[in-house]
Amino acid sequence: MEYDRRHFLAGTGAAFFCTIAGHRLSLDQPADMSALAQDIKVPPEVAAAQGATDASSAAGKRATGAEYWIRAETMSWDIVPNGHDAMMNQRVRGKTKFSAYGYRQYTANFASPIGPATIPGPLLEVNVGETLTVHFENDVDVPVTMHPHGVFYANEMDGAYKGKFTTPGGFVQPGRRFTYLWEAHPDSVGAWLYHDHGPADPVTIFKGLFGSLIVRDPADPAPPDAEYFLTLHSLQPIATGLRQQFECINGRAYAGNTPTLHAQVGQRVAFHVVTLDNDFHTFHLHGHRWTDPSGEIIDTKVMGPAESHTFTIESEDNPGRWLYHCHVFTHLHMGMAGWYIVK
Amino acid sequence: MEYDRRHFLAGTGAAFFCTIAGHRLSLDQPADMSALAQDIKVPPEVAAAQGATDASSAAGKRATGAEYWIRAETMSWDIVPNGHDAMMNQRVRGKTKFSAYGYRQYTANFASPIGPATIPGPLLEVNVGETLTVHFENDVDVPVTMHPHGVFYANEMDGAYKGKFTTPGGFVQPGRRFTYLWEAHPDSVGAWLYHDHGPADPVTIFKGLFGSLIVRDPADPAPPDAEYFLTLHSLQPIATGLRQQFECINGRAYAGNTPTLHAQVGQRVAFHVVTLDNDFHTFHLHGHRWTDPSGEIIDTKVMGPAESHTFTIESEDNPGRWLYHCHVFTHLHMGMAGWYIVK
Amino acid sequence: MEYDRRHFLAGTGAAFFCTIAGHRLSLDQPADMSALAQDIKVPPEVAAAQGATDASSAAGKRATGAEYWIRAETMSWDIVPNGHDAMMNQRVRGKTKFSAYGYRQYTANFASPIGPATIPGPLLEVNVGETLTVHFENDVDVPVTMHPHGVFYANEMDGAYKGKFTTPGGFVQPGRRFTYLWEAHPDSVGAWLYHDHGPADPVTIFKGLFGSLIVRDPADPAPPDAEYFLTLHSLQPIATGLRQQFECINGRAYAGNTPTLHAQVGQRVAFHVVTLDNDFHTFHLHGHRWTDPSGEIIDTKVMGPAESHTFTIESEDNPGRWLYHCHVFTHLHMGMAGWYIVK
Repeated sequence: MEYDRRHFLAGTGAAFFCTIAGHRLSLDQPADMSALAQDIKVPPEVAAAQGATDASSAAGKRATGAEYWIRAETMSWDIVPNGHDAMMNQRVRGKTKFSAYGYRQYTANFASPIGPATIPGPLLEVNVGETLTVHFENDVDVPVTMHPHGVFYANEMDGAYKGKFTTPGGFVQPGRRFTYLWEAHPDSVGAWLYHDHGPADPVTIFKGLFGSLIVRDPADPAPPDAEYFLTLHSLQPIATGLRQQFECINGRAYAGNTPTLHAQVGQRVAFHVVTLDNDFHTFHLHGHRWTDPSGEIIDTKVMGPAESHTFTIESEDNPGRWLYHCHVFTHLHMGMAGWYIVK
Repeated sequence: MEYDRRHFLAGTGAAFFCTIAGHRLSLDQPADMSALAQDIKVPPEVAAAQGATDASSAAGKRATGAEYWIRAETMSWDIVPNGHDAMMNQRVRGKTKFSAYGYRQYTANFASPIGPATIPGPLLEVNVGETLTVHFENDVDVPVTMHPHGVFYANEMDGAYKGKFTTPGGFVQPGRRFTYLWEAHPDSVGAWLYHDHGPADPVTIFKGLFGSLIVRDPADPAPPDAEYFLTLHSLQPIATGLRQQFECINGRAYAGNTPTLHAQVGQRVAFHVVTLDNDFHTFHLHGHRWTDPSGEIIDTKVMGPAESHTFTIESEDNPGRWLYHCHVFTHLHMGMAGWYIVK
Repeated sequence: MEYDRRHFLAGTGAAFFCTIAGHRLSLDQPADMSALAQDIKVPPEVAAAQGATDASSAAGKRATGAEYWIRAETMSWDIVPNGHDAMMNQRVRGKTKFSAYGYRQYTANFASPIGPATIPGPLLEVNVGETLTVHFENDVDVPVTMHPHGVFYANEMDGAYKGKFTTPGGFVQPGRRFTYLWEAHPDSVGAWLYHDHGPADPVTIFKGLFGSLIVRDPADPAPPDAEYFLTLHSLQPIATGLRQQFECINGRAYAGNTPTLHAQVGQRVAFHVVTLDNDFHTFHLHGHRWTDPSGEIIDTKVMGPAESHTFTIESEDNPGRWLYHCHVFTHLHMGMAGWYIVK
């Protein structure tokens, strides 16, 4: 019986994913974004502020750090561009391309794009003591936003949909803009996520609307020789319409498609790993160990949704072709692995 | 084929939840508590001790700390009292009320109740160096207990069912009492769970039999201006008989039903988060960051079943209406979110 | 519709486990190991090196630490030898014996076995500054390996299958040998896993091919009076062919079958807990608390696949019959519990 099966699965938290604007979404059925977009009502504070082109109250503040122009766009995205799983040396069967969302960086005033939209979106960088300015424009079909982790931000810079309490930054409608100001305090040092937190999240996140940001401490010693930002996440049927779930690193699945990282013996190499998913992961890097801030030696690290883990190999000492991967077996074998090549 | 589907799910750990007294329980079928109660046999040591009204060997010990009278009771509990999800500004459909179990606090000698039974149960407080005394009475249909985390306790104060090795504190039958003595050693400082660990656990836990306890260090500086205890847990069809699983904070699901927390700028605010579930969670608080004991800056924290996480915002500096929530998307959208309002 | 149901489940990461040599494996269907073995192609570098009996490039290096002779073998393994769950005092129904794989230790040059093959395999021990030598022989039907965590090893000592980049240590065919050299650097101190990482992993791991290794620091104070190595893992239908998934500690499920640990009051007791699974666990020990390296007091610890957690009870102070268990309820009730008896 259909009901019973779903009910049964509901018991495991998997059946009905969420209700958006009266639409019940389930993980295995692609969400109809245009139907969603039509039925999501504009919150009162957002409606009241719609006179201004840029609804941000940030206008009067002085940005002291980097300034970004970011647009959310639709794009075609291939999860497995080379159609091959290099770890298992076999072909990846089935369709792997879907209609994605991505954040795309532009030059000042959205004059011209700096490269294509990507999953994850552009890296945002800021130093402690500075304020990061992000001019955001929504060019996808549903209201979306940018919500940061780790940094300090005022209530109206939250980028989160909050029902009738939503302010304009938490509900940027198609065709509109909002300027976010996010402050890098001393207790913000590290690598963090940003992602959509609008009314259609997390479907939009599973379509690609997330990225990394880093808060650097100018008092730190010289930057590392190599620095890698890795996001562990999945691209799910609800968002891709594909038959299969892919376990991804930076929007790609399977070694040779996921980032191939490079370093040389003697180099100082930093890894910034974040996760954004409905699942938990453990990050493992072959041939290497590191210490966490408590001095504990680790080579495999548990991570939950939206967590960050940063570690630095002070002096790379182990040449080889190494695997880095999630140590959850189904995730590893559904694509969550890549190469780290040291020479 | 029915069998195959269940077998399949068994492979994921979800099909047969446990076998109690010969009854195979599955997560999607409400457990028949009265049938269970009839078929659970009294362990030999418990039967031998049944002469005394209060079977506890604690009689001869001197309690030096707080003394509590707690009764496990049945009650009707509404998971979503206002029927509304304030985060998404939408109605929560379907039945949300069920026949629950809860711990309820009484004045000395169970003279009169101090408020109703609740999920979670009453907060238990004790200082380092003291012994907490909990007089427990079981007024539900199955044998239940109180099992604490974090504190020191002797074998017979464990409150855990252990088959034929069970002592009276691990099997308090309907209508009977037991007095638990739990000691707060210096290595017990912090916030912890207590919960039923009798022969029908975890069904009883999913019906509401858990609470928080805190061990305070008198050498600590002044208490915080505001202090919040949050339990992340689910209420599941096996225990509620409802069609839907609810992802809860303190017995309620969806913002506006879960605790709405308050603080003022300048205040010192402590959060004590515990989890008790079949699932893993990550706790995220918008607009705030904190450090763990190793000095690591975090804004999202992975937590597994029965873990504790305590953090203090030394001086609240960010006014606004903030969301706190589990960052697992299905959990967030099945109710695990609330408001933190700073003025 | 059959497809849809599986598709649905695929959305939860549970349906198709992996594709090995063109065979799609799912968690609920036993894998046909002999069919797999036939279809896995020998990687080019491995084929080229097949002239030598022992393909290891370790021949010229001098081992300074312990030397082990380990063979992977098939065996019959009973997950619940006494057929009883002592925690619930009830019979465990259904078949519990299966055709397993195990690592087995031999005397020098594989002259004679030291005990039977076991799950987990033999404990490997090494001191900081030494090199561990492991002579490995494969006596099962598919290519398997030994891959270590925590220690330092050169690229060709990785023991990992890497498609066409695989070196001989990552693909030890039935009947062949390989000698691994693993180095214990100061940043390797602790307890770690080793496990198969060949082309048929993780099916082989779910059949039993894993074990613990410990790197000791000779500068440390006297060894503990008692020391226990516990692996939390599951034995799944895909590997066992049994109808039920078992949640195990050291190859056994249910208290009385899992390790019963012993200690005396006043003793120093070390616990080395590792996990190797598709799931996450929390390790809880009744009546005891400990501190992690950051000084945080814990009594329940979240652990993900392939993580390690070591803690020491400096002076055992609590006599009794204690449960240690995973605090995920389904895992606890599917067997992941044991006794710790202090006198």
